[in-house]
Amino acid sequence: MDETGDGFDRLRDASFTIIGLGLMGGSFALALKERGIGRQVWSVNRRATVIDRAIELGAVDGGTTNITEGVADADIVVLATPVRVIIDQLRQVGPHLKPGCLVLDLGSTKSDIVRAMDSLPAGVEPVGGHPMCGKEVAGIFAAEASLYEGAVFPLTPLERTSPAALDLAEYLVESIGAVPLVIEADRHDQLVAAISHLPYLTAAMLVAAAAEIAREDPLTWPLAASGFRDTSRLAGSDVTMMFDILVTNHEHVSGMLHRYRRHLDYLIDLLENEREEKLLEVLEQVWQDRHSVTSIQ
Amino acid sequence: MDETGDGFDRLRDASFTIIGLGLMGGSFALALKERGIGRQVWSVNRRATVIDRAIELGAVDGGTTNITEGVADADIVVLATPVRVIIDQLRQVGPHLKPGCLVLDLGSTKSDIVRAMDSLPAGVEPVGGHPMCGKEVAGIFAAEASLYEGAVFPLTPLERTSPAALDLAEYLVESIGAVPLVIEADRHDQLVAAISHLPYLTAAMLVAAAAEIAREDPLTWPLAASGFRDTSRLAGSDVTMMFDILVTNHEHVSGMLHRYRRHLDYLIDLLENEREEKLLEVLEQVWQDRHSVTSIQ
Repeated sequence: MDETGDGFDRLRDASFTIIGLGLMGGSFALALKERGIGRQVWSVNRRATVIDRAIELGAVDGGTTNITEGVADADIVVLATPVRVIIDQLRQVGPHLKPGCLVLDLGSTKSDIVRAMDSLPAGVEPVGGHPMCGKEVAGIFAAEASLYEGAVFPLTPLERTSPAALDLAEYLVESIGAVPLVIEADRHDQLVAAISHLPYLTAAMLVAAAAEIAREDPLTWPLAASGFRDTSRLAGSDVTMMFDILVTNHEHVSGMLHRYRRHLDYLIDLLENEREEKLLEVLEQVWQDRHSVTSIQ
Repeated sequence: MDETGDGFDRLRDASFTIIGLGLMGGSFALALKERGIGRQVWSVNRRATVIDRAIELGAVDGGTTNITEGVADADIVVLATPVRVIIDQLRQVGPHLKPGCLVLDLGSTKSDIVRAMDSLPAGVEPVGGHPMCGKEVAGIFAAEASLYEGAVFPLTPLERTSPAALDLAEYLVESIGAVPLVIEADRHDQLVAAISHLPYLTAAMLVAAAAEIAREDPLTWPLAASGFRDTSRLAGSDVTMMFDILVTNHEHVSGMLHRYRRHLDYLIDLLENEREEKLLEVLEQVWQDRHSVTSIQ
């Protein structure tokens, strides 16, 4: 990070507005504060008590429940609400943004958001974003300044996004400790369907199927050990967030579910027809694939 | 634990033979040694170098690659090999066991093992066992004395098992820090199909489906974060062990896979036909089920 460059000056002097003080927005604000980024960190939240709490935590300098007021002075706006709320908020804030304002979002799917960003007034600089981090605990109380450290942070620029605005967004992402990765929105959505949305749904279906057994036999949950706990962890993710993700990415998600079902059908066939050699081969291939992915160990 | 009772004396004075010095057997031996249980801890392993290593680690007093020799003096035999190896070994050791010998196994499925145990000579005391703990790392090098601490440890007695032998098995399980749970073998197998074998297979299918995407797009794995890592962790389990489990429990496993597929089909239907209200309801129910299982948090 070049601390003498133009990006450094722009970040240091920028007035930020964080929209949505949940886990992601709260942690983003805390990271800015901890690293001394921004002339001020302002916020918008639909509940004033949450803003009060964020002020107490030292995450923001102040805030408002009025979104159009909240963005009026911002040099950089960060939208940190669920995907469909972001799309709605982009429509609301558009006419009130300063010319040259960088608009970054943290939504988990990008195609619909980038499309909505394209309708922002000319002169505004939108860039889609999606930090690959999080926790199963929602809300400002779970926020932490270190949440983004080391996380891959895809950025999806639009055709209209200027090189300078993309540079600034990359610089901002690096400045909170994350690793920017510029990628096309639809490609991003396909990949997260595979490595994020499908895992959530496999966890959800696992819980649904095991819960049926648990309703029949009270010893089910007492027998569940760390293997079940880890494999089902994502089923405890924030439902509002995941629902928006699934709905805005339903084509890629549905494609992955069909792909997954082919593996399921194959597995059932191998088991029921006692094709043991082939079954062993499949499990060994999976083992190798899991172990070769060193980046996720 | 009543340290003045008959169980205490019997454990303290017992000669143990652990068959199979992998993660489970090695950890069992270490736990006995650390807690001073047993007059001696002997072992059987097909590779002599592993026995040498276990002696160096202080897990066992000695051992042999000859299984019939290895069990001849044992008061308590613990079989810690994969399920189908256990079934084979039960046949081999039967004629060489001392009268009154307690035979406990650590196999992950119980019906086939309990059936094989029923063919042991009269006078021998078999009890099935299945500690609900483990790691994705196999072998004596991964063994640790604390592996069983706090783990639920199902015990599946046979009709022929005497109350005194079951008591001793429960006492042994408690003495290494685990929590015995007496349960019928087939009921055990149904429940672990739901909370252990299904999670393994959902993880395996997730890796298989995501690996297909990864072969098409090199950015797939770099985007995978902790959610994918946890949900797919079990796909890295020891393949030999899991294969034996699936084959010996294929009826219950196949039943669970069909149950799981009903949830998958339902989910695909909800997504593709944009039945959003119902989808939200399903995800909320799953969230509640996941959070209500306090024992696995």
